[in-house]
Amino acid sequence: MAHAADKAVLVDAFTTVRAQSERLCEPLVVEDYGVQPMADASPPKWHLAHTSWFFETFLLKPCLAGYSEFHPAFEMLFNSYYNGVGNPFPRLRRGHLSRPSVAEVYDYRHHVDEAMVKLLESAEPDIETRATLGLHHEQQHQELLLTDIKFNFGHNPLYPVYQSATVAAESEVGSLTFIDHQGGLVEIGADPAGNSTSRSDFRFDNECPRHRVYLAPFALADRVITCEEYLAFMADGGYRTFSLWLSDGWTWVQGQNIQAPLYWTEGDDGWLEYRLSGLMPVGGPNPVTHVSYYEADAFARWAGYRLPSEAEWEVVAASEMADDVAGGGNFLESGHFHPVPRQGKRMQLFGDVWEWTASPYTPYPGYAPLPGALGEYNGKFMSNQQVLRGGSCVTAASHMRATYRNFFYPPDRWQFTGIRLAKNGG
Amino acid sequence: MAHAADKAVLVDAFTTVRAQSERLCEPLVVEDYGVQPMADASPPKWHLAHTSWFFETFLLKPCLAGYSEFHPAFEMLFNSYYNGVGNPFPRLRRGHLSRPSVAEVYDYRHHVDEAMVKLLESAEPDIETRATLGLHHEQQHQELLLTDIKFNFGHNPLYPVYQSATVAAESEVGSLTFIDHQGGLVEIGADPAGNSTSRSDFRFDNECPRHRVYLAPFALADRVITCEEYLAFMADGGYRTFSLWLSDGWTWVQGQNIQAPLYWTEGDDGWLEYRLSGLMPVGGPNPVTHVSYYEADAFARWAGYRLPSEAEWEVVAASEMADDVAGGGNFLESGHFHPVPRQGKRMQLFGDVWEWTASPYTPYPGYAPLPGALGEYNGKFMSNQQVLRGGSCVTAASHMRATYRNFFYPPDRWQFTGIRLAKNGG
Amino acid sequence: MAHAADKAVLVDAFTTVRAQSERLCEPLVVEDYGVQPMADASPPKWHLAHTSWFFETFLLKPCLAGYSEFHPAFEMLFNSYYNGVGNPFPRLRRGHLSRPSVAEVYDYRHHVDEAMVKLLESAEPDIETRATLGLHHEQQHQELLLTDIKFNFGHNPLYPVYQSATVAAESEVGSLTFIDHQGGLVEIGADPAGNSTSRSDFRFDNECPRHRVYLAPFALADRVITCEEYLAFMADGGYRTFSLWLSDGWTWVQGQNIQAPLYWTEGDDGWLEYRLSGLMPVGGPNPVTHVSYYEADAFARWAGYRLPSEAEWEVVAASEMADDVAGGGNFLESGHFHPVPRQGKRMQLFGDVWEWTASPYTPYPGYAPLPGALGEYNGKFMSNQQVLRGGSCVTAASHMRATYRNFFYPPDRWQFTGIRLAKNGG
Amino acid sequence: MAHAADKAVLVDAFTTVRAQSERLCEPLVVEDYGVQPMADASPPKWHLAHTSWFFETFLLKPCLAGYSEFHPAFEMLFNSYYNGVGNPFPRLRRGHLSRPSVAEVYDYRHHVDEAMVKLLESAEPDIETRATLGLHHEQQHQELLLTDIKFNFGHNPLYPVYQSATVAAESEVGSLTFIDHQGGLVEIGADPAGNSTSRSDFRFDNECPRHRVYLAPFALADRVITCEEYLAFMADGGYRTFSLWLSDGWTWVQGQNIQAPLYWTEGDDGWLEYRLSGLMPVGGPNPVTHVSYYEADAFARWAGYRLPSEAEWEVVAASEMADDVAGGGNFLESGHFHPVPRQGKRMQLFGDVWEWTASPYTPYPGYAPLPGALGEYNGKFMSNQQVLRGGSCVTAASHMRATYRNFFYPPDRWQFTGIRLAKNGG
Repeated sequence: MAHAADKAVLVDAFTTVRAQSERLCEPLVVEDYGVQPMADASPPKWHLAHTSWFFETFLLKPCLAGYSEFHPAFEMLFNSYYNGVGNPFPRLRRGHLSRPSVAEVYDYRHHVDEAMVKLLESAEPDIETRATLGLHHEQQHQELLLTDIKFNFGHNPLYPVYQSATVAAESEVGSLTFIDHQGGLVEIGADPAGNSTSRSDFRFDNECPRHRVYLAPFALADRVITCEEYLAFMADGGYRTFSLWLSDGWTWVQGQNIQAPLYWTEGDDGWLEYRLSGLMPVGGPNPVTHVSYYEADAFARWAGYRLPSEAEWEVVAASEMADDVAGGGNFLESGHFHPVPRQGKRMQLFGDVWEWTASPYTPYPGYAPLPGALGEYNGKFMSNQQVLRGGSCVTAASHMRATYRNFFYPPDRWQFTGIRLAKNGG
Repeated sequence: MAHAADKAVLVDAFTTVRAQSERLCEPLVVEDYGVQPMADASPPKWHLAHTSWFFETFLLKPCLAGYSEFHPAFEMLFNSYYNGVGNPFPRLRRGHLSRPSVAEVYDYRHHVDEAMVKLLESAEPDIETRATLGLHHEQQHQELLLTDIKFNFGHNPLYPVYQSATVAAESEVGSLTFIDHQGGLVEIGADPAGNSTSRSDFRFDNECPRHRVYLAPFALADRVITCEEYLAFMADGGYRTFSLWLSDGWTWVQGQNIQAPLYWTEGDDGWLEYRLSGLMPVGGPNPVTHVSYYEADAFARWAGYRLPSEAEWEVVAASEMADDVAGGGNFLESGHFHPVPRQGKRMQLFGDVWEWTASPYTPYPGYAPLPGALGEYNGKFMSNQQVLRGGSCVTAASHMRATYRNFFYPPDRWQFTGIRLAKNGG
Repeated sequence: MAHAADKAVLVDAFTTVRAQSERLCEPLVVEDYGVQPMADASPPKWHLAHTSWFFETFLLKPCLAGYSEFHPAFEMLFNSYYNGVGNPFPRLRRGHLSRPSVAEVYDYRHHVDEAMVKLLESAEPDIETRATLGLHHEQQHQELLLTDIKFNFGHNPLYPVYQSATVAAESEVGSLTFIDHQGGLVEIGADPAGNSTSRSDFRFDNECPRHRVYLAPFALADRVITCEEYLAFMADGGYRTFSLWLSDGWTWVQGQNIQAPLYWTEGDDGWLEYRLSGLMPVGGPNPVTHVSYYEADAFARWAGYRLPSEAEWEVVAASEMADDVAGGGNFLESGHFHPVPRQGKRMQLFGDVWEWTASPYTPYPGYAPLPGALGEYNGKFMSNQQVLRGGSCVTAASHMRATYRNFFYPPDRWQFTGIRLAKNGG
Repeated sequence: MAHAADKAVLVDAFTTVRAQSERLCEPLVVEDYGVQPMADASPPKWHLAHTSWFFETFLLKPCLAGYSEFHPAFEMLFNSYYNGVGNPFPRLRRGHLSRPSVAEVYDYRHHVDEAMVKLLESAEPDIETRATLGLHHEQQHQELLLTDIKFNFGHNPLYPVYQSATVAAESEVGSLTFIDHQGGLVEIGADPAGNSTSRSDFRFDNECPRHRVYLAPFALADRVITCEEYLAFMADGGYRTFSLWLSDGWTWVQGQNIQAPLYWTEGDDGWLEYRLSGLMPVGGPNPVTHVSYYEADAFARWAGYRLPSEAEWEVVAASEMADDVAGGGNFLESGHFHPVPRQGKRMQLFGDVWEWTASPYTPYPGYAPLPGALGEYNGKFMSNQQVLRGGSCVTAASHMRATYRNFFYPPDRWQFTGIRLAKNGG
C-alpha cells in the first residue's frame, strides 16, 4: 500500500492534469466544442467526456464501491475503440452529437473527479497504476484537443484565433550539423519493473521491455528541418518529382493534390500558414511542421540523407534527456503552441515537433500488452503506422521521455509532425 | 408603386415570418445550432444565416443605397447554390463552421432585419416582389429547420425532445374511400400575371404558366395511408418482395438495408418511432411518414393501386383548397409538428404529409425561370426528382396552395413525406 | 393457332435475326468477346449468350417438352436482371468470365436455335408472341453489341478498327428549320389489341396503351444538331458556363471533367473522334452523337430552344414514319454504323441518332406490365431515366416505329445519342 | 568481359526461363489471357508482354545497336510502374485491352527473344547483370501468372481446372515442434560484391547489404500451420473474437465479412477449397494458404505464439538452405502448384507457402537502390507492406535463397501465403 504522502502526490497530479484539460478549452465558445472537422479530429466535448469515461470505466465502476454512473448511455457514447467494453458509438459521427450539452459534459467531469479523489485517497497500488495510466491518457488527449481545435479553426475561412501570438521574434538557427554515434550493441526501451505507480516512473506497455539492438555507425542532425529548408525542397519541384517519393506517397501526393504542408496557403507575398494564433507568413527558421511521413521521407531523400530509426533516435536522446525535457524544450507548458526555432546550441530533440522515424510501429521483442480491455490501448495498433519521437509544442513535458513511442499513419499530418535527418556513419 | 397600406402589410409579414424562424429555434441549446447530421440536413445556424443572406444578396446590396454588408466572408459562407453569386462554401462542410457563433448569426439577422424594414418602407414594386419571394424562401427553410433538427435528434441515442407532445389522442380514421373524377381537358398551374407582390397571389416560377392537361378518368383516395396500413405491407414482406419495387428502388432497399420508414426502430413491444416529442410507439391511425418515393410506389403496387400524377392531385385539390388550407389542415401553425389522423370527413389533401406523386419534376409548357441568379431558385433542379404535393405538418399554411410543387430525389425521406393512392377510373 | 405460312415467316425472322447477331461479331477476334470496359458495356460473348438465355428461359424450358438445358450454371450466369428467374451473376463481373469460351457460347446459341426452330414449327399463338418479343430483345442487344464494342475499341490506345469506313463524302445539310405543329388534343402510344404475334404489329408494353395528350402549339427542328453546331457551343464556353446546365448536370460536368462528347479527343489540328472505322477528324455536317441528356439540354438552352417532349416528337413522327423507316433512315441495315448528314430534304426523324427528349420515362396512363418475370422487362425501370426517340445508325429498321420508347439515365452517352431542338409555337 | 562459356550459360538460362513462362500458359484458352479479375491480378497476356517489355526497355533499346522496337505504343501499354520510363497505362484497365491479341503478344515475345539472344551473345558484364535481373523479374511474374490465373478461375462459378491433380495422397505431418536458437549478434542479408552477373550469385538490391542484427533467444516452429490447425482456430470463433486481431485487421474482417481463407467455401460436408486442379475438400495436413497477414497474426495470437521476424527466419534458414532448396522443397518445378504436407522430418522452410513475418518491409541499413529507373524496382515500395520469406509452390527453386525478401500489403491473400509460428526463447 502506498504511503499517505504518495497518495497526496497522486491526488495533486490528478487535480492538476484534469484542470489542465479544462484550461485548454477556456478560449472556446460553446459552438467550438462540438465540431469534428474530419474523422480523426474529435470534438473537444468528446475529448473532455472520453477522458472522464476512461476513469469511470477502468477505475470507478470496477473499484469504487457504491459508485453510481453518471449516465447509462455514456458507456457507449464515449468509448473510443475498446471492443472489450462494448460497441462504441461510430467514430465518424462524434460531431453529430449536439447532446449531451457542453454543460452536461462538464457536470460529468466533475462527477467523475469527485469520485476519483475519493477513490485515490483510499487507493491500493493497482488503482494507483491505473490512475497514473489514466492521467497519461488524458495528457495525450490534451495534445489532441489542441491539434483537433487547430484543424477546425485552420479550415474555417474566418481563421479564428485560439490565442494571441506568444512566440518571440525568430532568430537564426545555424546550419545543420550532424552528430556522430559509433553504433554498436545498445539498449533501448524501458522496463516495467519498479514502482510504476509513481508518475515519474511511468511508461506505456509499448515502450517495454528494455532490449538490445545492434546499430551501425550513424549520425543525427542536431536540429529539425526549418521552413526555409523545406521551401527550398518545394522550390526545387519536390512535390512534382516522383523519384523522391515512396510509391504509396506518390499516389497520396497525386490523389490529394498535395503541394505544401498542411495549413499552408499561398498568399500574394508568399506562403502563409495558419497557427493557433491566426494566419501569418510562414516563419523561415521555424521548424517545418504538419508534414506526413511521405513528405518527411521525400525531403530526406531530396536532401541526400535519410530519416533515423527509432533506436538511433533513442540512444542519442537518452543522454540529452535530462537537460532538454526539464528545461530547454518547447512543450505544452511554454504556452506557445507552435514550434520555435532552435534556441542556442541545444540539440532540439524534445518538444517543438514530433519527429517521423523510419521505423514502423511494431512490438519490441518480448512485448506483452496489459491484461483485459486496457490491452487494447496500444498493442492492437501495431501495423501500418510509423513511430514518431520527441514530443511536440503541445505535448506536456511531464508526459515525455526518451523511450516514448508515438505512432501515426504515414499520410497523417494534423499533429505537430516534423523532420529530423540522419545519415550512415563512418 | 404600392400604397402605404400595402407596405405596412408587407413589413408586418416580413416581421412575422422572420420572428417565426427564431421562435422555432427557441427549444434549442447552442450546441444544437451547429450540427449537420447528413449532407442534406443543414445546421439550424446555417438556415438562420442563409435566409438572411438571401435578403442581403438579392435586396439590400443591389437596392438599398448605403447598405453596409455585415461581414465580407458571409457572401460565400451562406450562399447555398447560386453560382451566379460566386463559389459557395462546400455544402458537406456546413457542420464544420463553429464560427460565426450563434450570437453572431443572430446579430447578422437583426442587422439585415433593420435594413430590410427601411428598404420595404420605401419600396418599389419590384422590391416587393423580391421581398415576397424572400419570405417564401424563409418559410421553406422553416420547414427544413424542423426536419433537419429532427434528423439530428432522431439519430442521437439520447433522443432529445424538441417539444412535449401536443397531439391529441388518436382516433379512428375510417376506411379508405376513392373519390371519382371524370378527367378530361383540365387546367393546372398558375399565372404570373396580376399583382404578384401581394403575398396571397404569390407563386413560384415553377408553378407557371397555367396550362391545359388531358386526364383520363381517375379516382383519388380521400386520405393518406396510415401507419397501420403500412405495417400490413411490412408484415406481408413488402421490403423483401422485389416484384413490388422499381429497379432503382430495389437497389436502394438492398444497398441501404431498408426495413421500415425512417425513424422507426423495433422495440420489445413493436415498432417505435422518433417524433419531435420523443421516442414513442408508432401510432396506428396516424399517417405514415418519412417514406421515400420508392417506398410509396412499392406500397401502392402492393395495395393494387398507384400514385397520382401531380395534375390529378391538383385538379382535385383546387376545389378543396379553400376549406382545408384555411382551417382544417394540420400545418406548422397547429404546433403539432407531426401528422395527425384524418379528422372527420375532410379529404386530408393539405398538411400532415407531403404526398409523393408519380410525376417527375419537369418544367410546365412555356416555363421561364426568373432572370439573373434568382433563376437558379427552381429551374436548375428539373431532373431526377419527383413532385410532392399538399404541404406537411411543418409547412406554414400561408405558404401553401393547390398549385404548389415541392420536389425531392426518390430516396429522400427526411421530410414529412407520405402516401396517397390513386387508381384509373371510368 | 397461326397458319403454316405465318409460322414460316416467324421461323424465317428467327433465323434472320439470330444470324445477324453472329454476323455483327465477325470482325472480332476471340479476345474481343470477353471485355467489359465499363459496368454498362457487357462483353459481346455475354450478349450472345444472354439473348439465347432469353429464349431458353422464357420459351424452351416452359414450353418445349423434353428440352434439355445446355448447362445448369447458365441460368444464373446469363440472367441480366430478372429477379423472378433467380439471383443474376453480378453485372460488374461479366468481364471476368473467361469461361465458358467463345466456342462454347456459340454451341449454346446453336443448341438453342435448333430447339427454337422445333418449337416455332409447332407454335401456339402465345409462343409466337413470346418468340417475337425475344427477337426484338435480340435486336436491342445487337445495338448494344455495337455500342459496347465501340466503347472497348474507343478506349484502347490502339484504336482498333471494327470495319473500314463506309460512309460517303459529307455534304451540306442546310440550315436548321422549324416545322410548326398546332398542338391540341392528340393521341400517342400503341394498342396491344390485334395480332401482336405478327412482327410488324409488335410493340413493347411500355408503348401502351394509346392515349390522349394535350399539346400546346410547338415547332420541331427538321434535323438533328450537327458537329459543327456543337463545336460552336464548345467554342462559346458551353462546358464552362454553369447557367446553361441543370444542377445535376453541372455536378456531372465538373466531377467528370467533361469537355466534349464521348470519343472526342483534341488533336494537333482540331478535334478527332473515334468511330467504328477508326480515329478521324470530327465531321462538321455529321450529327453530333454520344452526348448525355445534360449536354443535350445545355446545348438547347444555349441555342435558345428546348428539347421536345416525347409526345411532341411522336405526333410529328407518326406522319413521317412510312417514308423514313422504310427507306430514308440510316439504320443498322445501311452498314455505316455511324450517323450521316441529313440527306436532301427528309426530316431526319428516324435513324442516325437517338434523340433525347425532355420527358422522363414514366408509365402511360393505364400501363400494365407483362405478367410474370417478363414484367421486369420494361416497367421496373420507370424512374430516373429519360425517354429517347427515333432509333440510331445501329438500330435495326425492322425494330423501329414512331411509338418506340428507349430510355437511359441522364449521364449515359455510350449509345448513339443526339440532339433535336424544339420550341414553343403559335 | 565474360567468357564464351558463361555467355552460353546465360543464353541457355534466358531461353529456359522465357520458355517456362509460355509453358505455364499452355493450359489456357485464348479467352483466359485477357481477364483481370481484380486490380492486383493482371491478365496473363499482360504478364507475357510486360516481361518482354522489361528486356526491351532496359536492354534492347539502350544496348542493342539497330534494335527496332516492336510497337511504339507498347512502351506505355506494358509499363507496370516505372515513372522513369513514362506514364504507364492505368493498372485498373489492364483487363480492358482486347488488343493486342494473344498472337501479337507472342510475336512480341519472339521478336524480343531473338534480339536478346543476339545481344547476350556479345554481352558486356553490365548487360549480363541486367539480363539476369530481367530473368529473375520474369520468374516473379511466372509466380504471378499462376496466382492471377487462380484468382480468375477460383472466382468463376464454373471453377475451370488448370491442370489435373498431381499431388500425392496426404499423410500425417507430425505435431508442431519448436527449434531453439540462442540469438545473439547475427548477420543477415547479402552483399552485392562479387560476380553478380552469375545467376547463382544473384540477389535483389533490397537484400543488401549484409549487416548485423541482435536477436534475443527464440524458437521457430519446424513446419508451417496446417489446414486442420487452422480449422480449429475457426471452430473456436477466431474470426469473431476481436481481441485476437490487430485493429486494422478487425476492420478488414468486419468490412469484408471474412470468415475463412481465400478460395474456401462451405459445402454440405465441410469446407471446400479451389485449387488449380479444381474445387475439392480442404486437405487437413496440407499447409493452410491464401491467408492475409492479419489472419496469420491473429492465428498466432490465438495459438499463444507469434510470427517470426525476418531476421529470425533468415538465420535459421541460412543453414537449412542447401538441402531444402536443392531438393526437398515443393517449388514450381514440382508441378504440383499447391502446398503439400511436410514430408518426413525436413524443416519445411522453403517452398509450399510464403511465410508472413512480423517485419514490415523497410530498407536494410546502408541500402541503396539501383541507379536510374531500375531503382524503382524495389525501393519505392518500402512502406505499409510486410516481408514474407521462403518461397511457395509456384516459386521457381532457381529463384529462391535464404536472403530473399518478398513483400505484400497486410490484407493481400491471393498469393500462396501461409503461417509459421515463433516464440521467445531462453
